[in-house]
Amino acid sequence: MPAVRILILGGDGYLGWPTAMHLSAAGHEVSVVDNFLRRAMAVEQGAESLTPIQSLQERVRAWKEVSGNEIRFFIGDLTDPGFVDSVFRDTRPEACVHYGEQPSAPYSMIDRRHAIETQRNNVEGTLNVLFAMRDLAPEAHLVKLGTMGEYGTPNIDIEEGYIEIEHKGRKDTLPFPKMPGSMYHLSKVHDSHNIHFGCRIWGLRATDLNQGVVYGIQTAETDLDERLCTRFDYDEVLGTALNRFCVQAVVGYPLTVYGKGGQTRGFLNIIDTIQCIRLAVENPAVAGDFRVFNQFTEQFSVMDLAEKVRSVGEGLGINVTLNRMADPRIEAEEHYYNATHTRLLELGLEPHLLTDEVVAHLITTIQRYKDRILLEPIAPKTKWDPRA
Amino acid sequence: MPAVRILILGGDGYLGWPTAMHLSAAGHEVSVVDNFLRRAMAVEQGAESLTPIQSLQERVRAWKEVSGNEIRFFIGDLTDPGFVDSVFRDTRPEACVHYGEQPSAPYSMIDRRHAIETQRNNVEGTLNVLFAMRDLAPEAHLVKLGTMGEYGTPNIDIEEGYIEIEHKGRKDTLPFPKMPGSMYHLSKVHDSHNIHFGCRIWGLRATDLNQGVVYGIQTAETDLDERLCTRFDYDEVLGTALNRFCVQAVVGYPLTVYGKGGQTRGFLNIIDTIQCIRLAVENPAVAGDFRVFNQFTEQFSVMDLAEKVRSVGEGLGINVTLNRMADPRIEAEEHYYNATHTRLLELGLEPHLLTDEVVAHLITTIQRYKDRILLEPIAPKTKWDPRA
Repeated sequence: MPAVRILILGGDGYLGWPTAMHLSAAGHEVSVVDNFLRRAMAVEQGAESLTPIQSLQERVRAWKEVSGNEIRFFIGDLTDPGFVDSVFRDTRPEACVHYGEQPSAPYSMIDRRHAIETQRNNVEGTLNVLFAMRDLAPEAHLVKLGTMGEYGTPNIDIEEGYIEIEHKGRKDTLPFPKMPGSMYHLSKVHDSHNIHFGCRIWGLRATDLNQGVVYGIQTAETDLDERLCTRFDYDEVLGTALNRFCVQAVVGYPLTVYGKGGQTRGFLNIIDTIQCIRLAVENPAVAGDFRVFNQFTEQFSVMDLAEKVRSVGEGLGINVTLNRMADPRIEAEEHYYNATHTRLLELGLEPHLLTDEVVAHLITTIQRYKDRILLEPIAPKTKWDPRA
Repeated sequence: MPAVRILILGGDGYLGWPTAMHLSAAGHEVSVVDNFLRRAMAVEQGAESLTPIQSLQERVRAWKEVSGNEIRFFIGDLTDPGFVDSVFRDTRPEACVHYGEQPSAPYSMIDRRHAIETQRNNVEGTLNVLFAMRDLAPEAHLVKLGTMGEYGTPNIDIEEGYIEIEHKGRKDTLPFPKMPGSMYHLSKVHDSHNIHFGCRIWGLRATDLNQGVVYGIQTAETDLDERLCTRFDYDEVLGTALNRFCVQAVVGYPLTVYGKGGQTRGFLNIIDTIQCIRLAVENPAVAGDFRVFNQFTEQFSVMDLAEKVRSVGEGLGINVTLNRMADPRIEAEEHYYNATHTRLLELGLEPHLLTDEVVAHLITTIQRYKDRILLEPIAPKTKWDPRA
């Protein structure tokens, strides 16, 4: 595989930074862009990464020291067209991996300001990237992080981006209908429509990775040096389900199961996230194609995960309790869910499944940082309907 | 029908002002909101309304004089949350008719700035309205102007907002897939998803009117006094197809037919637009319902319209020529098109169809204002792909 010039938007985040190192280790020429929105959000929430993360500057220095590879970085905001263009001119990307968005559903539901800021930030940032691609890098491949949450929970099988519909004796293959469940998820649906348009009208090439919920904290590269660790959030706004449950187990906080716990989603290991990004980058979409992959390896309900953490925790001598609380979200708490996810497997994805060993390893890693855990930001405060 | 307190967003525009008068004449209590975006856009394009329109202040004074009815007005921007809330507090609307958006596809395709401003203006304005409804008028009925252009031109029949899909032995009724054709049309798709969310999560009630292309200039109320006339645009950016063709016929400018002319869309008379709005307002959606109506009465291809204007023009002694020019848009120039539009008929819509008499009346009305026609802004300059 010849080296690809890759621009990683949001390259300082939970997944962005491990992705940057992974692609750099694979011999690609990596530049990252970030405006530290995620760090600012944690400050706003009075939360902190469980892991003691370094500044981006220090990360890049440590990576150079450990690997010998250079990662360039650019600090700025994707909603600023001049900044985006200058980065594209400077780096001349062949692939653009786009994590650069406000990533939290609860954050987007705090109030009107957070809802509008989320949609503005995500939609305008992506529009700026699309115009920069059209005008400055029309052959580049956009690898965009979408979310399985764009689909909602329809009563039919979820396909990868498109569905063939037969209707009144005629047929067409059309975008899969979307029923997103938060202002954040809506912003991702808006992005998908805008990117699809850029491919249809301007001949851009893009891969939309509709990702499930990511768990885990360690990759081959984060393991090389403590300074290279990635952030790990466990608060109600920024933490994803399994990560949050494991932290709760470690501090003896009852696992916060929302509603009936039948809410089912796709999940994947952080190791598989970076593997999928690399597969997408190294197997680009053709010009004009808006390619959609569902990026997850297994489906679990919230209750499945809670039970798994309880049983593994007990094996480690931890007494884990469940707190089945009223769901602060408005969502189906029991529903059909079956989503296709074969296209990344066809490209060569080798899944790392959620075994008891993986959960145990996650719990013991968290135990190392136990002293840093803050209890206050864990309890759910953000309601989907504040009047309820 | 008891009087309804109605707030009309964008009540100074081509359709907003005739709607305001029509609902006021029907005995409703009407307030309008506008920031004069449409007037500013015409100035930016070096274009002008064919008809000599009055200021909103003068319109409201004349309407009071002619009808005896008061229309209140509020000048401000829907992207300003404080302004939106203050208007909702002041007017306590029971229905909110939302025309308050940037309405032009070519305008949205001029360049990056116009694309981003269109999506920001339309999406954030609508989000502000949804939050104001949730917090200040949760029982109010939102009547939102969408567009048939949200659907694009699929190879199956277009249904009204939703489609029942049978897939792998299971069934669900889901939002009809969208393939919009411009940055403007995309903004309307984003709105539809956001409003649907507001209905699903907050129990709001909304009717999304996916409107076809509107033609015509006269309603019962505009006819009452010259000062009450509505604007009429014919330039490449703001003019709709039939209106533009009729103006071109009057000045002896060849009708600008883009590409093969097989582009087919739904059309309706301005009289039917205001009739549909009134039907929607007087028959509100139930709480939690996101109701979608396709609002048009007939389908025509661009070439159908051009031929109709040519034949009617010749009957009036005008020599009309066609200029089949390269399509500045990127779109299917020949395609299947069949869209369902029964729900407004079921509510009582009585269509005013596009007869030769209607076209002749439009042409003779335009002839009255012939001296005001500017030729420069008619020729298409906005390309969907500026690199082409």
